[in-house]
Amino acid sequence: MPHQIAIVGLGAITQKSHLPSIAANPAFRLVAAASLAGEAPGVTVYRDHMAMLAAHPEIEAVIINTPPAARLAIAADVIAAGKHVMLEKPPAATLGGAEHLVRLAAAAGVVLHTAWHSQYNIAVDRAAELLVGKRIASLHVDWKEDVHKYHPGQKWIWGAGGFGVFDMAINGLSIMSRIFDPVPYVTSAVLRVPADASVPVSADVTFSDGAGAVMTAAFDWGWRGDDKRELTIVTTEGQRLELTHSGGRLVVDGVEVVGATRTEYRDIYADFDRLLTERRSRIDLAPLRLVADALLVGRLDIVAPVMT
Amino acid sequence: MPHQIAIVGLGAITQKSHLPSIAANPAFRLVAAASLAGEAPGVTVYRDHMAMLAAHPEIEAVIINTPPAARLAIAADVIAAGKHVMLEKPPAATLGGAEHLVRLAAAAGVVLHTAWHSQYNIAVDRAAELLVGKRIASLHVDWKEDVHKYHPGQKWIWGAGGFGVFDMAINGLSIMSRIFDPVPYVTSAVLRVPADASVPVSADVTFSDGAGAVMTAAFDWGWRGDDKRELTIVTTEGQRLELTHSGGRLVVDGVEVVGATRTEYRDIYADFDRLLTERRSRIDLAPLRLVADALLVGRLDIVAPVMT
Repeated sequence: MPHQIAIVGLGAITQKSHLPSIAANPAFRLVAAASLAGEAPGVTVYRDHMAMLAAHPEIEAVIINTPPAARLAIAADVIAAGKHVMLEKPPAATLGGAEHLVRLAAAAGVVLHTAWHSQYNIAVDRAAELLVGKRIASLHVDWKEDVHKYHPGQKWIWGAGGFGVFDMAINGLSIMSRIFDPVPYVTSAVLRVPADASVPVSADVTFSDGAGAVMTAAFDWGWRGDDKRELTIVTTEGQRLELTHSGGRLVVDGVEVVGATRTEYRDIYADFDRLLTERRSRIDLAPLRLVADALLVGRLDIVAPVMT
Repeated sequence: MPHQIAIVGLGAITQKSHLPSIAANPAFRLVAAASLAGEAPGVTVYRDHMAMLAAHPEIEAVIINTPPAARLAIAADVIAAGKHVMLEKPPAATLGGAEHLVRLAAAAGVVLHTAWHSQYNIAVDRAAELLVGKRIASLHVDWKEDVHKYHPGQKWIWGAGGFGVFDMAINGLSIMSRIFDPVPYVTSAVLRVPADASVPVSADVTFSDGAGAVMTAAFDWGWRGDDKRELTIVTTEGQRLELTHSGGRLVVDGVEVVGATRTEYRDIYADFDRLLTERRSRIDLAPLRLVADALLVGRLDIVAPVMT
């Protein structure tokens, strides 16, 4: 029996990544959707997630892909209805909000899955395996995109709770959370905030592993040219791991170990199937905590407006 | 046998609150101190905490009262030396840094005490007891001081990691963490950041308890006049709690229940004695998380410079 699932939010990421992955996985059957706009093939799209839940008691789990600020209330409703939940990244706009959902899910006995898609590529798994027991000499993270390419004309990304450059940089941070145990902690940051925004357009962040590693990151939404989404890690033994293409490709000491194969959403759903079957939650708030910590210690530089 | 303790950082809060509380409590004996400046009666003051630890193997626990940014490295050294630790508030500049210390302390088997002084007044205990099992209709927090009164000419408070108004507002947040279970989560914030600063001079924050309570806070370092440090809580049954004087006084439905008696540092040391005796840590990161969450969702308003 496939898991009967529903999806809330039918924007770009749902269309491009979720719906094809669900269609390709026999462990799932999409039975309904809710969204203010957008279509989902073969199922009714409700304007309201409550109407959807009422009309489809067979729903076992709900995938929530709305913008971050809207997720908390929807997820709380879904959990109250006794359904399991998968949350697109980031799981909430705040750590406290995310922990509220963790409490609700635990109390209701439902599965909560904070799905950080960049954690799911094979190259990321391989890097994590290679780093077990290794000491780190250095880490550098570059996460750079042209914001106009992916978010043309969008204003919410610059407003309160819009995350700014961290909307995409959090993917790199989520890889850090997956491959390092314990996760490094932020020691300083520079945050460049446009004069007409509440969030940074670019940021430099330094981290520590508490054991002497030199760890830096450069995040930039003002980048022009090809996307640059990569981590370079050097161990104290001199091994060099280059995790590029948003975690899709791994090169170790100059030799390609995993090619640029992005299987992340396929693997998210394979994992969600396991979690539902085993009634187990997977919760990772560390990427969100890294952003919060960068804001706590960041030096604020006000830069040119972005919306005018 | 009293606990043999040492203190790092001999600034205003150590002189005014810690040293008298230690002197008055027979469970403790101060054996050494470390600080770049300042004196401690009857003990040698080392310039360096490592020299202090080397010279005094009898030290059982160390109180760390330096500015927040310096605490992490000192606490890590102290834990590595096998000593128990008390941290003045806030326990670290970041959540990740605080969690790093929690891990280190657990691995070393030493006690870690995050001492939020405003949590320790009798009126706060009484408010917490009165609120057990109650639903909240509303909360309003006012934490307002004249920054020039307590921090004349200090510049670090305005820089990266300086916390700004949250340096004092976090005391109000620490009371929220003490009296509400679970702790409410931040839903929105307005952050007024001076053009020459990295942190807010004032902030308005709203919270949710996930159950319909209306919860607001106003934090202001630009306040002129008497300090205003109070929480007003109304339960759904109509009971009204006014916790004023930084948690020192409790008025319930217009009747004073606890007078303005500030016993916080006395009670911190009584608690630390228990924790050391029972080899138990007391760790609360929720106040720091509330600040981080306000920064994550805050709308940024740039206001007039403060340092010129």
